[in-house]
Amino acid sequence: MDIRACLFDVFGTVVDWRTSVSRDLAAFAREKRISGIDWLEFAVEWRKLYQPSMEEVRSGRRPFTILDVLHRESLDKLVARYGINGLSEADLDHMNRVWHRLEPWPDVIEGLRRLKAKFIIAPCSNGNIALMVNLAKRAGLPWDCILGAETARAYKPTPDAYRISCRQLALEPASVLMVAAHNNDLRAAKAQGMRTAFVPRPTEHGAGQTTDLAPEPGTVDLPVKDFRELAAKLGC
Amino acid sequence: MDIRACLFDVFGTVVDWRTSVSRDLAAFAREKRISGIDWLEFAVEWRKLYQPSMEEVRSGRRPFTILDVLHRESLDKLVARYGINGLSEADLDHMNRVWHRLEPWPDVIEGLRRLKAKFIIAPCSNGNIALMVNLAKRAGLPWDCILGAETARAYKPTPDAYRISCRQLALEPASVLMVAAHNNDLRAAKAQGMRTAFVPRPTEHGAGQTTDLAPEPGTVDLPVKDFRELAAKLGC
Repeated sequence: MDIRACLFDVFGTVVDWRTSVSRDLAAFAREKRISGIDWLEFAVEWRKLYQPSMEEVRSGRRPFTILDVLHRESLDKLVARYGINGLSEADLDHMNRVWHRLEPWPDVIEGLRRLKAKFIIAPCSNGNIALMVNLAKRAGLPWDCILGAETARAYKPTPDAYRISCRQLALEPASVLMVAAHNNDLRAAKAQGMRTAFVPRPTEHGAGQTTDLAPEPGTVDLPVKDFRELAAKLGC
Repeated sequence: MDIRACLFDVFGTVVDWRTSVSRDLAAFAREKRISGIDWLEFAVEWRKLYQPSMEEVRSGRRPFTILDVLHRESLDKLVARYGINGLSEADLDHMNRVWHRLEPWPDVIEGLRRLKAKFIIAPCSNGNIALMVNLAKRAGLPWDCILGAETARAYKPTPDAYRISCRQLALEPASVLMVAAHNNDLRAAKAQGMRTAFVPRPTEHGAGQTTDLAPEPGTVDLPVKDFRELAAKLGC
């Protein structure tokens, strides 16, 4: 493999969204004296609205709309469903930006720093630019640039999300490694000619997770245990 | 001023394109045994085709086309005009990518590192993403993300180039500082509500430069001597 750039899925692969969102919202709720909500469940319910909201765009029923807006629409639905009252516009905006405040898995920063010395490293996420920049700035993710849905104007796993990201780096897909904890993301990247690395995140969905525990045969070029092993296997 | 992000013009403001392009091409010409060309003049002539090539896009006569492509069309014209023969496609591509190999002015790296600790820092350049990433990677420019013509799909000084860049960071223009060595760039940024900082680069065009030697009254919020003084004045 002659790899020049590594592109990363972010939600689940780089950051632990479930723990981060639930902890952050629980702390905010305490501050606001909102009680009786299971914030872990709330985080999971919010995430369940993620794919359907993007599907409106992928299907062409809706023009391209950034994830911050889709997240906010989903949040408004959940706040109504859970019967949470008295939140101001500033409160809702703060809650929505919890996706800008996610924590990375413990191996991520060291792995990315090592990879950056040899490769272009960038997210290829469905998150929008502001979300990715704020998240990276806070967590210390040393990206070379921000690629993904907003720059490609297409949500993964739409082929354009991968094709346009490679083209924007002026690289052939065969020189670009897609790194993800999700086989469906890697399957779509491979179909566009990219190389693929699978990193298991067996607790992304909690202790009882049953999906994406192992790389899918035929989809994954490089199975690794974490970002440190990815760096080592790529000679960094 | 409540600044959250600093956006930078690149050609001339961050990098010394004239010296970099001419030295790089002169070295390449020696290797290829091409003689009799004044490469400083060649660099200046190449740059003279820059504004007219973008004007085709700004005017709407041509759909958005990245700068690498415009640069290559200009290079092909110049190679013919100078009567340079025997260059392969790989040679021409290498020459065209000289714009990915520009050297920063001496105050830039330290200034950007200091600014990055407090602000989002990004280019807002007419260069395309691959050009900006490769240039940054080689020179060590620590951008948080790459913004500019390709992400906005508009060439400066078109209003969208500034407006969309601020919007992609989810920031009001009044919270974003545009930094440039060119008054016309800052005038256009200010018209969109951005804050402005002028950094003189009195030898961008060589020893006899007569333009942009001083900040234009009414256009510039923050006149500084270089990127180190910019960092100091912004409390970094």
